[in-house]
Amino acid sequence: MKILVLNCGSSSLKYQLLDMEQDGKIMAKGLVEKIGLAQGSLTHQGADGQKHKFEKPVPDHQVGINWVLEYLIHPQYGVIKDLKEINAVGHRVVHGGETFKDSVLIDSRVMDALKACIPFAPLHNPANIKGIESMQALLPEVPQVGVFDTSFHQTMPDYAYMYAIPHKFYQTDRMRRYGFHGTSHKFVVRKAAELAGLDINNSKIISCHLGNGASLAAVLNGKSVDTSMGYTPVEGLVMGTRAGDLDLGAAMAIMEKEYLTPSQATSYFSK
Amino acid sequence: MKILVLNCGSSSLKYQLLDMEQDGKIMAKGLVEKIGLAQGSLTHQGADGQKHKFEKPVPDHQVGINWVLEYLIHPQYGVIKDLKEINAVGHRVVHGGETFKDSVLIDSRVMDALKACIPFAPLHNPANIKGIESMQALLPEVPQVGVFDTSFHQTMPDYAYMYAIPHKFYQTDRMRRYGFHGTSHKFVVRKAAELAGLDINNSKIISCHLGNGASLAAVLNGKSVDTSMGYTPVEGLVMGTRAGDLDLGAAMAIMEKEYLTPSQATSYFSK
Repeated sequence: MKILVLNCGSSSLKYQLLDMEQDGKIMAKGLVEKIGLAQGSLTHQGADGQKHKFEKPVPDHQVGINWVLEYLIHPQYGVIKDLKEINAVGHRVVHGGETFKDSVLIDSRVMDALKACIPFAPLHNPANIKGIESMQALLPEVPQVGVFDTSFHQTMPDYAYMYAIPHKFYQTDRMRRYGFHGTSHKFVVRKAAELAGLDINNSKIISCHLGNGASLAAVLNGKSVDTSMGYTPVEGLVMGTRAGDLDLGAAMAIMEKEYLTPSQATSYFSK
Repeated sequence: MKILVLNCGSSSLKYQLLDMEQDGKIMAKGLVEKIGLAQGSLTHQGADGQKHKFEKPVPDHQVGINWVLEYLIHPQYGVIKDLKEINAVGHRVVHGGETFKDSVLIDSRVMDALKACIPFAPLHNPANIKGIESMQALLPEVPQVGVFDTSFHQTMPDYAYMYAIPHKFYQTDRMRRYGFHGTSHKFVVRKAAELAGLDINNSKIISCHLGNGASLAAVLNGKSVDTSMGYTPVEGLVMGTRAGDLDLGAAMAIMEKEYLTPSQATSYFSK
């Protein structure tokens, strides 16, 4: 079985084609950048293992994904003969709200539910949805699966995810701690248990996802019970472009000194 | 030696008269409330150990403190014969900024430095200063000492007190983690070490101040190395009237939904 994995951002998309019969070996991978700008680019690493960069305008995600598919079956740079060899497509989706507690096979009801999650991640989820819709148009027969950054943390108990704010914000807006980097934390704890010879079902692991974005998770018996990121990814550790935890009084003082609206402050603290 | 301890708030003040020759035994204690309102009150517990409540207008802190002094030497409710028996006055001061790393004997230079700390605690420090000035007017011969909520945490290393915000806010406004409840944490770790038979100079203690306000402190060899409260007391644990840690993205979403200015939001998150 061969699986194409897509991670669509607002102006870029990353992909990998994995051969599951060879333990998930990466057959090809790459990156489309500057989607929607005058000149886009594709950096593709395929049959010869070398990076090749191509340029052309990429007006939208569908054009970008189609370009990727062309190179997967390209006579020189490709790794498969026919797109029919792709058995499934996996999409990284940033925010699944409280709806998606695990990965999901995408159908029209799922698409509606994904759209309902847009307010949680207004910059990320629309790009993820565009990627799914483009792929559905290009490979209509292939099953598509959504994999969420938030799902792994849906096992958190309420005392870990509730904020000390008026309850109406949870009731009407589902404002609570969600946590992110779930696919990473899930992988890392399983791998850590395996390497340490632990029974994952009887283990206590602190998982650290440390990159430009960074978060910790407390994982009990393989299930996330707390995490440092919150309603948005700005909470928790100090990161490359995010303030992390900050005294609300300090945040308000900065907003006053810099004359920031809440929406400007959101970008200010999480560039 | 007898020490009068004063904790002045914006509209109330608490006091205790301690006999240091009897291991700090509380000779008298009480509370003046509704300072500045039409009708104020004094609740005094003196010679007979019973609480007695009195009412009269208390236009300002000096009138309130004078009322307390009257009852300390009161023929029926008092505990001393003459105010000259008071050897020193200790004032609780909320915020000492980076200036006050320990308790301090108050003189005119200290008063200037205290006034410079008002921006850190605009609601609390002015009341503390009024209490000191009133006491200086009423008992000019008696030494006055300032004891700060923040001093104990001045041993924190920079990596514990610096926020991930533009450095200018530290350079020009000294915006950083200060921490509070220092007098409580300092007392608690010493008492804990004593009760547990630990050498305080070779100890690791987590101190928990849990009341309507609440904070934790990490104390290494008797010195605070981190604490949960921050630039203001709103950060950290969930409290009776304070939100504690909250994702900045959630805070901004609430400000937008409730149409709050930064100054309104400060009260909203810390009632």
